[in-house]
Amino acid sequence: MTTATLSLSELTAAATEAAKVTAAASDAERAGWLNAVADALDANAAELVEIADSETSLGAARLTGEVARTTGQLRLFARVITEGSYLEAVIDHADPSATPPKPDLRRILRPIGPVAVFSASNFPFAFSVAGGDTASALAVGCPVIVKAHSGHLRLSERTAEIVAEALRSAGAPEGIFALVSGREQGTALVQDPAIKAVGFTGSIPGGRALFDLATSRPEPIPFYGELGSLNPVVITGAALAERSGQLAAGLAASFTMGAGQFCTKPGLVFIPAGTSFAADLAEATKDKPAAGMLTDRIAEAYPDGLRSVASLPDVAVVSGTVDQDAGANGAAPVVFSTSAANVLQRPDELLEECFGPTTLLIEYSGPEELSQVLAKVPGSLTATVHAQPDEDVSALVDQLTGLAGRVLFDGWPTGVAVNWAQQHGGPYPATTSLFTSVGATAVRRFQRPVAYQDAPEAVLHPALREGNPLGIPRRVDGELVLR
Amino acid sequence: MTTATLSLSELTAAATEAAKVTAAASDAERAGWLNAVADALDANAAELVEIADSETSLGAARLTGEVARTTGQLRLFARVITEGSYLEAVIDHADPSATPPKPDLRRILRPIGPVAVFSASNFPFAFSVAGGDTASALAVGCPVIVKAHSGHLRLSERTAEIVAEALRSAGAPEGIFALVSGREQGTALVQDPAIKAVGFTGSIPGGRALFDLATSRPEPIPFYGELGSLNPVVITGAALAERSGQLAAGLAASFTMGAGQFCTKPGLVFIPAGTSFAADLAEATKDKPAAGMLTDRIAEAYPDGLRSVASLPDVAVVSGTVDQDAGANGAAPVVFSTSAANVLQRPDELLEECFGPTTLLIEYSGPEELSQVLAKVPGSLTATVHAQPDEDVSALVDQLTGLAGRVLFDGWPTGVAVNWAQQHGGPYPATTSLFTSVGATAVRRFQRPVAYQDAPEAVLHPALREGNPLGIPRRVDGELVLR
Repeated sequence: MTTATLSLSELTAAATEAAKVTAAASDAERAGWLNAVADALDANAAELVEIADSETSLGAARLTGEVARTTGQLRLFARVITEGSYLEAVIDHADPSATPPKPDLRRILRPIGPVAVFSASNFPFAFSVAGGDTASALAVGCPVIVKAHSGHLRLSERTAEIVAEALRSAGAPEGIFALVSGREQGTALVQDPAIKAVGFTGSIPGGRALFDLATSRPEPIPFYGELGSLNPVVITGAALAERSGQLAAGLAASFTMGAGQFCTKPGLVFIPAGTSFAADLAEATKDKPAAGMLTDRIAEAYPDGLRSVASLPDVAVVSGTVDQDAGANGAAPVVFSTSAANVLQRPDELLEECFGPTTLLIEYSGPEELSQVLAKVPGSLTATVHAQPDEDVSALVDQLTGLAGRVLFDGWPTGVAVNWAQQHGGPYPATTSLFTSVGATAVRRFQRPVAYQDAPEAVLHPALREGNPLGIPRRVDGELVLR
Repeated sequence: MTTATLSLSELTAAATEAAKVTAAASDAERAGWLNAVADALDANAAELVEIADSETSLGAARLTGEVARTTGQLRLFARVITEGSYLEAVIDHADPSATPPKPDLRRILRPIGPVAVFSASNFPFAFSVAGGDTASALAVGCPVIVKAHSGHLRLSERTAEIVAEALRSAGAPEGIFALVSGREQGTALVQDPAIKAVGFTGSIPGGRALFDLATSRPEPIPFYGELGSLNPVVITGAALAERSGQLAAGLAASFTMGAGQFCTKPGLVFIPAGTSFAADLAEATKDKPAAGMLTDRIAEAYPDGLRSVASLPDVAVVSGTVDQDAGANGAAPVVFSTSAANVLQRPDELLEECFGPTTLLIEYSGPEELSQVLAKVPGSLTATVHAQPDEDVSALVDQLTGLAGRVLFDGWPTGVAVNWAQQHGGPYPATTSLFTSVGATAVRRFQRPVAYQDAPEAVLHPALREGNPLGIPRRVDGELVLR
């Protein structure tokens, strides 16, 4: 693609120029750009899925669904900006009689400037070149430079070609979008003064290293990293008594989905001591096949991770084997089990993420021990409760609210709906910010507030003009007004 | 006060316990706490102003006004949480017919946990113990531990006594509020794992050092720092031709207000070359008296800062003298002038903040040079335009929007209204975040989003229950619903 022939400083300079145009573009124009990208991806879905499958082993069915999810996401952001609340327009009229007199003040969110997006390996569409970070940044008027993931480089390049061509045809400015690759380019991007924010999905060490770079710049910038997640699941004795087999089947499907390479994979499952759930889960996991992993490096790391869990005292292998060659044969599911008391003794070793189709059952003696061990669980994207309708789980829910951004009931965390209410982010290390990378409010990461005091109508953004020409929801003199 | 007898770890442990109670408290309860604090401060205003004046030299009139501003701020936050939009409640109902099926998802903002607040020297009420950071954190249910500013320690202690007693009487939990002092305690506070966010107002070096601590923790936390600001003012030739004397009078009043110790002091004033504005400003500044500064250290630094500006090539002293003893005699106003060309040659030296009653006139040859030199100005809290009504300033306003959080027209930046639309924050180094420390939206700094998926009605926060028992604005299935 053409951008590959430009240097990084040429790309960031072009993005800075483009930022003036994208900031001045109307919401309708930018919605048109997003919809054009979505249409172009849909039109090329078959070709893209074929490339993606050859690079990631994720399978055509899953990848076809992921393209639809990705284009649906682009179209959601188009609707979000068209609706207009995302501008958070606030008007306080002047009050000359106040002490001191109050000026006319009008506040709006404006695009932050060029954004760097780091693709993830595990969602080659939805968290990659044209994924949520790119879509939400473009939506609010920020040019994007994507750092491709080396795990699907050909797909990244082909996707970028399609995105760039769709944006160009739809009238978006040159410089609004580019793709770079390689660790060196990625590092330089985070440190480039033209870049005003970073979106990242990936590992804890990689993400933390880039976070440290972003925050130690002469001018620090926000780093929106989604870094890892254990996704604890709590099952009560009453729920197990009622439907142990059904829960085992649901859990087996969830932790093995996509070869266990979801950031929402349930990696810790808290169950009461003395049940037959481990046996039920072993049974439900038995016929889950080994599956190819995303990259050779990931396939090598999986058995290493399994062996280090198995080597810890008082950890049992309930299902599967830790002696496997995931590179040659695919990753086969493994279920471990241990006691809450053991986790309390060695939390750092047992509460570490193992990327792949494995999960750890943790047996608790009662609510008190459960609460003690949950207090050791690091911040997560999700936390799940399986209980019976007549149980009072409010204290448990309060605790889970403190450790995750999404709390689920009677379900499994691996599905992430893309809508207005989604929260995909949680306390560190799940994310490095108070924001979400999925759902309508993801756009807020790439906006900064500006207030205009006693401004002439002519220089105001249309969203702030007295007659509300855009017809959007606003807060006027403290009251929310729909249009 | 009692909290002084507890160690820091006892204080943060108490804050962590209190956080459970404050998070569970209703908006009406927390509004009651804020109003009780406001009432108590008003009732003790005379005593507080007397202590404050003895410690800060700011004068009874200004300080009395600042108490009113501070209690007004507490009451505004009480109204903000009562109105309920601050919870950002979003409900997406289930759609079992979608592919994949969509769960019921409900999102809300929850308190982040205990917050550390670092007081500023220059607003001993409004940005100190019971100031905006404290008020906005308490409003959303976060306990607060304030690090007192050494410049008004007695006032801090007395204010803290009044705040703590008012909170206790109003039924707030033990541990919701405490005061510590000393640099060592401040540093320990930022590093304490119990602290989940920091609010800070102060100098660039001090703020950056604490920002670096907060972001390099094992679990990094948001650091909301307001660090410094040059507050550029642009005056057009047409405006000067019409009202040079009036502009000079307004500027003189603004840059000398409070001995020039406002974070919104206009420190850079861009004027066309070849006018008589410098003489007009010298005339308007002539009778502004010297005024005592906040602390001995600040009074010592002021003449040092003046001398380093005066020592630069092609800088003229238009009014006042750099040879002064601000500690003994108070700080006397000084106006410098130079050319835009000179600023372009040595931007780092000339675009550095000098805390005190001084400002720098910068003469530009035309719009192009003005734009070039504005591009060198670091992020600011404010930027101001003085132009004539028939001038097209839209390109200028676009550029100023990029460098400041508040853009003013035909006014002076030193007044900061406390209302729904205020934005007190700008690009680094003005602030270290995308948020404001003044105005209704300041609460957003201390909230984190949590989504509940398929949750039973009984465990949901009232704001998310189907019947909207709180009667607050919410987004339901994509539509904003007022109540």
